This record gives sequence, structure tokens and C-alpha cells, in this order.
Amino acid sequence: MRLLLLNGNTSQAMTDRLALAARGIARPDTEIIPVTGRFGAEVIASRAAYAIAGHAVLDAFAAYGQDKIDAVVLACFGDPGLAALKDVAGIPCFGMAEAGCRAAAAQVRRFSIVTGGAAWGPMLTEYAASLGLAEQLASVRVLEADGGQIGARPEAAREAIYQAAVKAITEDGAELIVLGGAGMVGQIEPLAARISVPVIDGLTPAIRMAEAAAGSRQSAWRGPIATSNLSAELSALIGQPSTSS
Amino acid sequence: MRLLLLNGNTSQAMTDRLALAARGIARPDTEIIPVTGRFGAEVIASRAAYAIAGHAVLDAFAAYGQDKIDAVVLACFGDPGLAALKDVAGIPCFGMAEAGCRAAAAQVRRFSIVTGGAAWGPMLTEYAASLGLAEQLASVRVLEADGGQIGARPEAAREAIYQAAVKAITEDGAELIVLGGAGMVGQIEPLAARISVPVIDGLTPAIRMAEAAAGSRQSAWRGPIATSNLSAELSALIGQPSTSS
Amino acid sequence: MRLLLLNGNTSQAMTDRLALAARGIARPDTEIIPVTGRFGAEVIASRAAYAIAGHAVLDAFAAYGQDKIDAVVLACFGDPGLAALKDVAGIPCFGMAEAGCRAAAAQVRRFSIVTGGAAWGPMLTEYAASLGLAEQLASVRVLEADGGQIGARPEAAREAIYQAAVKAITEDGAELIVLGGAGMVGQIEPLAARISVPVIDGLTPAIRMAEAAAGSRQSAWRGPIATSNLSAELSALIGQPSTSS
Amino acid sequence: MRLLLLNGNTSQAMTDRLALAARGIARPDTEIIPVTGRFGAEVIASRAAYAIAGHAVLDAFAAYGQDKIDAVVLACFGDPGLAALKDVAGIPCFGMAEAGCRAAAAQVRRFSIVTGGAAWGPMLTEYAASLGLAEQLASVRVLEADGGQIGARPEAAREAIYQAAVKAITEDGAELIVLGGAGMVGQIEPLAARISVPVIDGLTPAIRMAEAAAGSRQSAWRGPIATSNLSAELSALIGQPSTSS
Amino acid sequence: MRLLLLNGNTSQAMTDRLALAARGIARPDTEIIPVTGRFGAEVIASRAAYAIAGHAVLDAFAAYGQDKIDAVVLACFGDPGLAALKDVAGIPCFGMAEAGCRAAAAQVRRFSIVTGGAAWGPMLTEYAASLGLAEQLASVRVLEADGGQIGARPEAAREAIYQAAVKAITEDGAELIVLGGAGMVGQIEPLAARISVPVIDGLTPAIRMAEAAAGSRQSAWRGPIATSNLSAELSALIGQPSTSS
Amino acid sequence: MRLLLLNGNTSQAMTDRLALAARGIARPDTEIIPVTGRFGAEVIASRAAYAIAGHAVLDAFAAYGQDKIDAVVLACFGDPGLAALKDVAGIPCFGMAEAGCRAAAAQVRRFSIVTGGAAWGPMLTEYAASLGLAEQLASVRVLEADGGQIGARPEAAREAIYQAAVKAITEDGAELIVLGGAGMVGQIEPLAARISVPVIDGLTPAIRMAEAAAGSRQSAWRGPIATSNLSAELSALIGQPSTSS
Repeated sequence: MRLLLLNGNTSQAMTDRLALAARGIARPDTEIIPVTGRFGAEVIASRAAYAIAGHAVLDAFAAYGQDKIDAVVLACFGDPGLAALKDVAGIPCFGMAEAGCRAAAAQVRRFSIVTGGAAWGPMLTEYAASLGLAEQLASVRVLEADGGQIGARPEAAREAIYQAAVKAITEDGAELIVLGGAGMVGQIEPLAARISVPVIDGLTPAIRMAEAAAGSRQSAWRGPIATSNLSAELSALIGQPSTSS
Repeated sequence: MRLLLLNGNTSQAMTDRLALAARGIARPDTEIIPVTGRFGAEVIASRAAYAIAGHAVLDAFAAYGQDKIDAVVLACFGDPGLAALKDVAGIPCFGMAEAGCRAAAAQVRRFSIVTGGAAWGPMLTEYAASLGLAEQLASVRVLEADGGQIGARPEAAREAIYQAAVKAITEDGAELIVLGGAGMVGQIEPLAARISVPVIDGLTPAIRMAEAAAGSRQSAWRGPIATSNLSAELSALIGQPSTSS
Repeated sequence: MRLLLLNGNTSQAMTDRLALAARGIARPDTEIIPVTGRFGAEVIASRAAYAIAGHAVLDAFAAYGQDKIDAVVLACFGDPGLAALKDVAGIPCFGMAEAGCRAAAAQVRRFSIVTGGAAWGPMLTEYAASLGLAEQLASVRVLEADGGQIGARPEAAREAIYQAAVKAITEDGAELIVLGGAGMVGQIEPLAARISVPVIDGLTPAIRMAEAAAGSRQSAWRGPIATSNLSAELSALIGQPSTSS
Repeated sequence: MRLLLLNGNTSQAMTDRLALAARGIARPDTEIIPVTGRFGAEVIASRAAYAIAGHAVLDAFAAYGQDKIDAVVLACFGDPGLAALKDVAGIPCFGMAEAGCRAAAAQVRRFSIVTGGAAWGPMLTEYAASLGLAEQLASVRVLEADGGQIGARPEAAREAIYQAAVKAITEDGAELIVLGGAGMVGQIEPLAARISVPVIDGLTPAIRMAEAAAGSRQSAWRGPIATSNLSAELSALIGQPSTSS
Repeated sequence: MRLLLLNGNTSQAMTDRLALAARGIARPDTEIIPVTGRFGAEVIASRAAYAIAGHAVLDAFAAYGQDKIDAVVLACFGDPGLAALKDVAGIPCFGMAEAGCRAAAAQVRRFSIVTGGAAWGPMLTEYAASLGLAEQLASVRVLEADGGQIGARPEAAREAIYQAAVKAITEDGAELIVLGGAGMVGQIEPLAARISVPVIDGLTPAIRMAEAAAGSRQSAWRGPIATSNLSAELSALIGQPSTSS
Repeated sequence: MRLLLLNGNTSQAMTDRLALAARGIARPDTEIIPVTGRFGAEVIASRAAYAIAGHAVLDAFAAYGQDKIDAVVLACFGDPGLAALKDVAGIPCFGMAEAGCRAAAAQVRRFSIVTGGAAWGPMLTEYAASLGLAEQLASVRVLEADGGQIGARPEAAREAIYQAAVKAITEDGAELIVLGGAGMVGQIEPLAARISVPVIDGLTPAIRMAEAAAGSRQSAWRGPIATSNLSAELSALIGQPSTSS
């Protein structure tokens, strides 16, 4: 199967790290096609950057994701644009944050997210609530360093991640830690070795769900919508006659 | 006061209709500054178009809305990008759908929305729920014609609007009708003359709230975020040092 | 338009302060008709006084509010009797607390109420939840002085209001302060000058909503109910045949 | 023990029927002291009448309920003024609707209320939701005849009650029927003989709870509140220094 | 009437204490038939023991509870197997925890549970939420000693119970204390003498509700289900043709 | 890895079908160890049978699941005993219903479950709500045939499954169908070929989640609990000193 790994940030370095990790997770017969957002924030760290990424994700899917792709993993923890992407793509789409949170909720009663960037605290709390997981989310613990900084200098962030996880466990009652964001690739094993509860990321469950769902067609909402000043690919995607439903 | 009237659709005709209506609603000392989205759908009619408009709204605010503006009314029923706009603007921002629904909820126990475009049914139902109004929203009744078509040929839509309102009242228990969307400008009076419950739009309460709030500064979340391929104005807006908090 | 400003407390001094403030807020063509409850607590400061005010509000409306009135503002923060008033009045009715909370919720994500009188803490928390605003209400901060005392000696209360607002912002995460109660008239400007977030009261949004809604008729539930020992006006009001629905 | 049976309606005939029924339910050592509201609707059948009854209930308690009373049963299905009564009484108070709904919820998964008076449909639905029972309330089925008419001519109402109960069972999934209101006294046995699910009223569980709770003192919120034009007893009750808390 | 008092724990001593207490609570004409679980934990103190007790409760009902029994009280605070028991029994069944919590919720706005055994903290919090009482449960305060230890040495536990109740009142806002568990029999009076709010257990309201409901038949879900390795009585009970609906 | 496939029903034929399906889903390096409940219903089809299975699941885990097992899949749609199993197992445990519903919720906005056995309708609706998925569950559509009958004669059930799925899509708005239960193995492909939305089961996501989680240790709640008349293995499991937390 061909799996589009769609990074809603514009950082190519982050996409490269994600692709490397994804290839280690995916089945041998899964081809990972990494794609980077063509505009927006290098690292999403505010609600404004998040809203822009919703557009960038659709644009990147329109540009790269329509031909012979079996499923999409939106590899940007927080899942900007995911609802719209699911609506228009016609193939299964999974978000790294949604998949991570749902997998965590299936494994334990209460879990915490540890991630980078202060703005993500309320944003992820609201997002988990919108998924029906308000009761199961013990806390979101944010590091000062954002995802880009953590990914670029992982050793420097390790101790802060550990301290945040320990607080989530002892103060918030977390029974599992979800490491949020592309920058956390490579942090699972060192952290898991030091703490007493399971540690997961969102990439693994998203890829597993995508592999399981690949091949099924989903109804897509597309209509003859007039647009202007979008990329040609996106304009074509959202303005074309619907394939179904 | 100077009030930015921000249309997240790209239709200039719709902006013109909105501006005309807004000037009839606003206080004499309120200057209406109408702005149209610079890219995206002419009339938002899908989740994808809605997500793109979230970006377009920020872009238009960045381009036109920063200098000597006292408040913003996001004049696109459904309020794309509103949470991000509130976060970054530094001045009070109100959405036409949010203001209309909250005003309706303050006036009666249960209200319905009548609007154009099939995709808006579930989208507005979810949006009202996110505002805490799930119990008070009796129904969303959608016309086949979208907001652009209604606005362009209002007489043709009048009977369909009436029929939808009657169903909302008699079948769904609505005690008030909110007419949703820029296309509905001019439909309130004819409809109110024919039905037994109050009829409101979202523009009036949004402008009233904006006039009341104008002048207060709100904290804005802005940080040194690296971006690429955004308009220069938007890049400057979301990447600049925060003015507060 | 003629706007009934209905104070559910029995304090004439409070009504006078409210009427003065209302005339400063209302449009030039809005006539403010102030009315005071004819029985009950001088200043509502307990659940019992609140329940009694529900009757007093209906009684005052029946006595003064039926002739050529276009809308009602219930000017008693907490809105005693509002649901019943909306049901029976036949014209639009808005409560100061409901309007203030809904306007706050439209402007920011999380707001706090600062008001006087210890009993109002749980009462307003429950009331906001009944409006669907539990998630958006950051806190209710109550002063020891009640609304009557604050209104009578505003300078004495100023520092306590400021301290409560600061705690709401820094400890509870409030992004806006709603000053609750007639006693707070005149406290907005001094407070707004000292803190970093918007400060509103409930009177302004209630009047704005009432002005916008004035003229629409709402269905009223009235029936041939036998009553005894009520004021003649109230007995007539609730026992008369319904005008509609 | 001495149990105050407080009818918030002003109908003496209804109080008499309630007292008769209560004496048949109560333990031999329980003395029933029946009290009738001194003002308001003969039979509560609208939101306005309900709000007035909130005052009348407090007034009647103040007049009759303070001396050597061990507990109160508010014998008016819908429980007007109950929250305020609990707050101020200093002794345990139970409402017929609350006790009936909570007992029903303890016995089966889903129950329906059958009662008289059209206005009670939405009022009781909202009330059950405020008790946390929205999921368990299958429906409220209202008869056209109100509680007073049912009580005065019980045989005439019997078939309508039966039909409503059957619809609640077969269409709404009710596993138990709560007969709501003083008018329903005497209807349980005939109905129970004809249908397949349990039938209860609210009076029995309210009296049982009151008998169990009698003797415990509850904290009361009373303060030095200035009042006017209330009955002397009520004025004294709500204005006196608190006995505790 | 004949009331089956079903202890889901396997401790005969606990059953004896419960039966003694129940006979003091019940009406003279109520015959208490005490039954003890035939397998499982002596004192339920974990989720696993709780799940096993769900089976043991059904087994004990099948063995002892079908002949001439009018109602069941499940006398194990936490109510293991109650939903299944209600479904299959054909007669009214009440749980000690459910009845206690619902009675508490009818008496005051917010209550706390004080019980023994650390695992019960989250278990009872979740259980109260499933009953719709999340808002009214102020807290669950657990003692280190479990229910068996408290019952065996009541004087030793008294001070710890008192301290927990005081914290529930002063720190959590409890207006009433529910003593949870068979081990608490005998603790109500000493505790009530020392604190300012009402103290109840679950046994009294459960017996009262059972006495009121006795005699009504409830629909039971039974079908021709093939089973193996259950007690003969249980196998017969759940595999027999349904008596109704 | 070694994966315990735990069937809470007592039907060996069902276990055989599940094991066959599981081996087709699992990775080559995953060893499937199938286990069947040692007592209870052949096919769970009532709340009583479900409660018994909660015990049987723990018993079977205690008997077979402790040595060198890396994770558990509870392969009985509805997940009896899952919360207790997670609490005591010390290794990751996933339920077929929970995993299926969470995976469905990650893929589409609204999904329906199609399964066999009338009692499962309300039971699965309540279960999905307890997972936070009430809003996303469009419906549970039950066939008259139960899971055992469907599994034994799959061709006979095929048309009924198709009809139920079509109704879920067209009447309930389902965007994805979850086939519930071991009996549904083999029904996905024929159904997916005939309908327009994705079709999934619970076994695949449960196995994927288990493979991802295998190897992590979870805290287990075990204590020195005295038990009687349980299997020796279960008695040892739940009574042993806790390995952690």
C-alpha cells in the first residue's frame, strides 16, 4: 500500500525525521510518501499557525495525495485540517493526535500528553474533549521548547520530558504517557526505560489504523465550488464533482 | 469607532451586500470597513472551503485590520478562523454565527437556524454544540440554494425560507428563527411578517457586541514564529513578538 | 422604543442607579421605564430571597409592563424569574446576568464574574452551567460586601473588586471580567484602567439585545388559571387567555 | 415525628386528598401536618404559576413549618421553590417530583412520567435533566386535564392515564411509570392492575426519605436581609441570623 | 413482605452485621432473609473482586432469591452485578450505594462518601457519575482500613471516619456524608453526634425503597441460553424462557 | 510476541473461528494463544450472561494468561470484565468492541454497529457512551440471530447483515459499519463489496493495538485479598501482593 505521510508544518527536517520513523513502524509492504506543507509555520505554535495549517494540509493533499494513495497519516500532532481532509479525501485519513489519544484511551483509564510549545496546552485539552476524551485525559504537560527545538536537539530535551512525565504520573494520575509531536521521535525508548507506565507516540497507532483501513473508499463531499487564488491542485480538488454521496 | 467587517468568502458582491446592511445597523459614529477574503471559495459550502477560509480570514485581518481598527465582525455565518482570529487580533472579534446563536439563546429557550447550502447542516449543529448550545438549538434547516444564490436572487428563495421556518417552528419546536448567512440580508422583514415567532440574523448582534466591546484591548498570542509562503502581512502578524501575556 | 428596566430587588436607590446607567447606554430613541419590585429583599443575597424575587418580577411586570412596552431588561444580576417572565410576557425579555455571560462567552474563551454577596458564588456557577457556559466560566469571585453596600459606597469597594479581578485573571485564567450586579455601575472604568483584560457589565449587552429584539412578538403561555391573593394585575396577567400559541 | 406536608398550590381540596394519602403511607408514629399555599394558582399549570409558588412555598413554611417540625415534604409535583426551601429550612426537605424521579431511577433503567397539564411536559423534562436524570427519563406524557381536574373526577381521567402509560411503555421504552401530581392519588392501583411495569407516585418515596432523614439538622443560609411587604413570618425567617454555617 | 438481603462479599460476619442492622431498619412486617455470596472475595477491595462479585450476586440470587421473595437489597456498597440482577430478577432490586447516593442527592446539593479501601475512590467516583450524580458528588474519601477491618474493629476506625468526614465538609463542600459499606453499620450515630451535617448510610434508603416497591413485578430478560459450569440454580435462572417482555 | 486471544464465551467453535481470523490478521512474529471461558454462556446474549463473563474472563486470564504473554485481546464483542482485566493483568489488554469503536471514531464522524442478539442494542449503546463516543455512534443495529448462529451459518445471515447496514447508512447516517462479534468473522469482504462505506471489525484494531503495546508493563492493582471458592489460579492472581503502584 502507499501511505501519504503529510506534515502540516513547513519544516523539511521534521518531515525527514517523521519519514525515517514511519518507515521503521510501517509494514514492509507499506510505501511511505512524505509530504511537507508548502506554506505556513515552520513549527506550529499558535492558534493562528494551526488555522493556516488547515489550509496547507488540504493544499498538500491536493498536490501530492490523490494519485494511487491508499491512506493518509496527518503527521502533525494536533491534526490541523483533519475534519476537512476526511471530508474531501475519499480515502481513509488519520491524525497523529487523534490516533494517539484514542489508542491511549483504549489501553488505560487516564493518560497524559507531553509535548512541546506552551500554546498546545489549552489547544490539545480542547481537542481531546472534542474527541469525547475529556474524562480520560489526565493532563497536557507542555515543555517550553517547541517541537522543532526538541527534534533538533533531542538530548537537551530528554530530562525535561522525563520531569513532565513524572509529574503527569504522580500529580495528575496518568497511567500512560503520549509523547506528542514529530519532535518526540526517538524519545520513547529512553523515557520508557525510566518510568513505570507505558509510553506511546501518535505515529504508530496512526500508521496501524491507516494500514488496516487502506483500500476502503470513503464518501467525499466535493461540489462545483468556484474558488480563487488557491493552488491549481487545491482548486481542482475542492471544486470537482463529488465522487460519491 | 472603526469596525472591520471581514467577509471570509471571496465574493465581492456578498461583501457589498453585507456592508450595506451593516451600515444600516451600526450606530452613526461607527465606520464600517468592509474587507473580502483574498483567496478561497466564492461561497463557503464545504468543510474544505471552511478550513481554507480560516487562513483567508487571518490573511485579510493581517492585510487590512491592524491599523486603527477598534473591533472586528467576522461576517461569514459559521465563523471560520474565529478562534485563531480572537487569539491573535488584540482587539475584540465577534462572529456572525456565534453572536446570532448566543443572542437567540438569550431571547428564547429553543431556536432554529435557516440557512443555505446542504453541508452547513451538520457543520452548524456541531458549531452550536461547541458553543454550549446543543440543548437550545432546535434544528438547522438548510435550503438547497447556497448563500450566494440566495443573495443574488432573494425573491426566488423567499418561499423556501418561509417553508423551512414553518417546519422549524411546527416540527422542531423553534421559538425563534436565526437567518444564517450574508445571503439572508433583506429576508428578515418579509419573513417576520409571515410567521409568529421572532426572526433575527447574526449581523445585528455581532455589530452590537462589537460596538460595546470596541476600545478594549485583549491579550494576543504572538511569538517569533518562522513562516514561509504566507502573505507578507500575515507572516508579520503571526511572527511578531506578543504585545501582551 | 419603550424599555422596561425591571429591578427585582426592592431598593429604590438601586433602581435609580440602574436607570441612570441605562439611560447612558441606551440609544437616544429608547425610553427607559424603571420599575422596582414591590416586595421581597432590598438586596437579593440568598436562595430564598432569589425565589421570592421570581414572584416579585412577575408582579412588577404585570403592574407596569404590559402597556406599550417593547422589551424588558431584568436588571437584577442572577435573573430571578426570567424563564417565567419570558414565558408569559409576550415581548422580548433579557436578563442582565444571562446577557452579560453570553456576551462574555462571545468575546473570549474564558471569563470570570466578580460580584458582591457570598451566596452568589454557587448560585451564579449553577446558573452559568444552566446556560451551557460551564466550560467558559473560569470562576465566580465574590466580595464580602453585597451589591447594595457596593452601590452605596463604591470607592470603598474598588480595591476589593480589583483584587478579585486580578485573582480571576492570574489564578483562574479569566480573559475577561464581568462585573455582576447593579451595585457595580460606575466600577467598569476605574477597573478597566488598571487591568489587562476587557471588563464588561451585564446591563450594556442586555440593553443592546433588547433594543435589537424590540418589536417582535413572542408567543406567550397564558391560560385560564384560577389564582388567589395575588396582586390584581398579576392575577389578571397569568390567568388570561393566551394571546398566541 | 412531625412531617410538614406542604402543598404549593392553593387548592384546599388538593391538600385534603394529599393528607389522606400521606396518612396511609406514613408510619404510625408520623404525624402529618398539611399546609396549603396562601397565594398563587389553585393548580400550577404554567411557568409563571410555578415561579409564584416558589415564594408561596417559602411563605407557608415560614408560617407553619418552623416549630417542632422534623422534616418537610413539598407535595406539589415539580417542586417549586425546593432549592430555596432546602437552603433556608434547617431541616430535611424533599420534593415529590425529585423523590419520585430518583426512586424510579433506582429501580429501573428508564422511566416515564404521566401527569396532567400541557405546560408540565417541557418543565418536567428540564427538571429531570437538572437532577442528572436526562438519560433515564424516557418521556413525560401529559394529559390535557390538569391535576386539579384529575383529582376532582378521577374516574374520568383513568382511561387517558392508561393510554398515556401504554404509549410510554411501547413507544418510549419506559420500564416504570411515575404518576405525577396530587391529582393522581388513587390512580396507582387501578393502573398497576392493567399494565406490565411498576407504577409509583412521588409521595411515597418523599415520605420515606423524610422519615429516614427526620431529626438531622441541616445547615441553613440565613442572614440579616432587609425585606419589605412579605408576610411577617417569611420576613422573619429569611432575615434572621443564620443558625449555622 | 420478604426481603432478600444479598451480600456480594463472602464474609458471613459481614452478612450477620448487615442483617442485624436491616432488622432494626425494616418495618415489623418485613422479613429479612440474609444471603452471602458463595464465592469471591471476603471483602471486595479491587476491580477484579468487584467483577467476580457480579457473578456471585447472580448466583446467590438464583440459589436463594426466587421463591416468595418480594424485593432484593444488594447489600454491598458499590452494587456489583446490580444492572444484571435488575434485568433478570423479575422483582424490584435496589443497591445500597445507588440508593444511598440517590437519597443523598435528594436531600442536599452536594454530598461526600466516606468508605474503606483505597480502590473504592475511583470506583465509586465513576459509579456516581454513571448514575448522573457527578455534579452532586463532592468527593469520595477513603480510609486505609477496608470494610471488613472497620466492621470487625469499629472503635479503632471511628476517629479516621470522623477526620475524613470533616475534610469532606471543610475542603470538599459536602453538605451530607454517606457512610459506605457494611462495615459502617453502627458508625452513624457516633459520627452524627460530632459533625454539623446529616450522616446517612445506604442500607436505610435501600430498604425503604424496597419496601415501597415490593410486590410490583418487573419485566425480566431471560432466554434459552446454553451455559456450562455454572451452579445449577444460576444456569436454570438465566437460561429459562422469559416470564415477560 | 505472544498474544492471548481470550474468548469470554464458552463456545470452543467460536474460539476456533476467532483464532483462525486472528492468525490471518496478526504479524508473522505474533503467536496467537486462543483461550475459551471455562464457565458461563455459550454465547453471551443477556446482561446476566455478560456479568458472569466478567468473572470468566478473569478466571481464564488467571489460568492461561500469566506466563510469557505480552498482551491480551479480549475477543468477545462488548468486552465483559475488561476494566477489571486491565486493572489486574499487568500487561496491555484490549477489547474487541472498544478497539473497534475507537478505530471507527478515528476514521469517520459517525459509525454504526451491526451485531447479533437483541439484548446487545441497549448494552452496546451504553458501552459506547461510557467510552465517550455517544455523539459518534449513529446506531446499533441488531439481528435476531445471535453471534453463535451467525458464525455457524454465515451465508444465512448475510442478507440480514446487508439490510441492517443499509438502514444504518441511509436512516441513521452511518459513514462506516463496525461488524460486532466473533460470529461476524468472514462477513467483512462480502459486505464491503456491496455497500459504499468502509466496513471494519473489532478484531483487527484490537490486534494492531496489542501488537503496538506489547512489551510495556502496566501497573496492576493486586492485594492480599482473602477469597473462597474461586479457581486456584484466579484466587492466586487477585490475592497476590501487587507488582507495582
